[in-house]
Amino acid sequence: MGYDWRMSDTVTAAVLLIGNELLSGRTQDANLHFLATRLGQLGIELREARVVVDEEDAIVAALNALRATYDYVFTTGGIGPTHDDITADSVGKAFGIPVRHDPKAVKLLEDSYRGRGMELNEARLRMARTPEGAELVLNSISAAPGFRIGNTFVLAGVPSIMRAMFESLAPTLRTGPKVATRTIAVYLPEGTLAARFRALQEAYPTVVMGSYPFYRDERYGADLVLRSTDRAQLDAAAAELKTTLVDLGGDPIEASA
Amino acid sequence: MGYDWRMSDTVTAAVLLIGNELLSGRTQDANLHFLATRLGQLGIELREARVVVDEEDAIVAALNALRATYDYVFTTGGIGPTHDDITADSVGKAFGIPVRHDPKAVKLLEDSYRGRGMELNEARLRMARTPEGAELVLNSISAAPGFRIGNTFVLAGVPSIMRAMFESLAPTLRTGPKVATRTIAVYLPEGTLAARFRALQEAYPTVVMGSYPFYRDERYGADLVLRSTDRAQLDAAAAELKTTLVDLGGDPIEASA
Repeated sequence: MGYDWRMSDTVTAAVLLIGNELLSGRTQDANLHFLATRLGQLGIELREARVVVDEEDAIVAALNALRATYDYVFTTGGIGPTHDDITADSVGKAFGIPVRHDPKAVKLLEDSYRGRGMELNEARLRMARTPEGAELVLNSISAAPGFRIGNTFVLAGVPSIMRAMFESLAPTLRTGPKVATRTIAVYLPEGTLAARFRALQEAYPTVVMGSYPFYRDERYGADLVLRSTDRAQLDAAAAELKTTLVDLGGDPIEASA
Repeated sequence: MGYDWRMSDTVTAAVLLIGNELLSGRTQDANLHFLATRLGQLGIELREARVVVDEEDAIVAALNALRATYDYVFTTGGIGPTHDDITADSVGKAFGIPVRHDPKAVKLLEDSYRGRGMELNEARLRMARTPEGAELVLNSISAAPGFRIGNTFVLAGVPSIMRAMFESLAPTLRTGPKVATRTIAVYLPEGTLAARFRALQEAYPTVVMGSYPFYRDERYGADLVLRSTDRAQLDAAAAELKTTLVDLGGDPIEASA
């Protein structure tokens, strides 16, 4: 497809999920879906995601590829106090910037642990380590901060904390045109509608069209998803699609937005 | 960490998830977790995953990077009859191999659609397209096959079909030593156990150790996960870990394997 719907003021992003547990099958990732949804809502186009193990070489290579290609990179995971939490050091290495204890982060941790009568030991102090010049990303749940360096945001892996960090940084993001979506379900097999759907895609190059088959109530069908930053074209394409589907003998049903 | 636990007979893999819907937030991926689990069970180490949009350049670049690095690549998505299904052509382009209708796949589709009284139109015939020399990957659910070319397996995106395809190809995979796992939960904050856990990791370089914090029953704790292909070292490390955790005031509980 010629995706000429992407405007010059588009803002792009990638997500880098860090953690052996995602690749061993121990944990089902929940962060990509959240970030994909929220970035889209903000008008930032998530273009790629990668999942890598807790090894410095793997993190450095993936981060350097992604941060050179996209406007923003969001990493999740690997910022806790244990030895397998190596994200801060790996990010520093990727950027070629020394990593040290951030004084503001140390203060946050001191206040938090003192308040709970717990020791701020060396392991916990690791959570204050950031590359020099990084800005902290605070959150409402945990004293341990994430951070931003260049175009890269380093976030927690625990979903509730990651989400709080994302919401605290979201207002600082540059955003582009928002993509609107219309989803039309029809009980027709994909193969029956494919030729006409392709012709519609060709007639509306500024609308990206996808087909997602399903099998429900013992019938084949598909969710036809139309996405565009151009509302008028999107609505025109959706109207024409509905007419086409009726013409093919279907009974299209639009999902509420 | 020096991951010298990886033996020379290790077999590695990557997963390439293809589909706009995974990056727009429309769909929560379910395939990575399945493949991660099954590959691990078979003795294949999943080292990386990528998620890319339905665009040829993106698929070609990711596939060429992954297939050059790992023993196997498994792709999911983009093999249906609609215009947004471009995986077969993209894989052909990545390998530099022409894509055409596979005669055996055409026969499978002919028999299936004829049996259901449906037309095998041009769109449906697209599902028989594979790079020359590819081997079909059949499945018990759908007549439309996946395929293998070189070290790359091209599978459906619909989870039930992807799983059936994986089980049909699994017996053909070369496998390495199986990684055994022991998981020990303890209600201690990560920061309390981190120093001793790091020392244990350093004492057992053939066992990979990870800590995954949780907050349950209003208490902080962590799942400590030990993984190794060396059962004796794994068991020795787990025994020492339990002793250490008791020493730290914890009450370690081992999850059933």
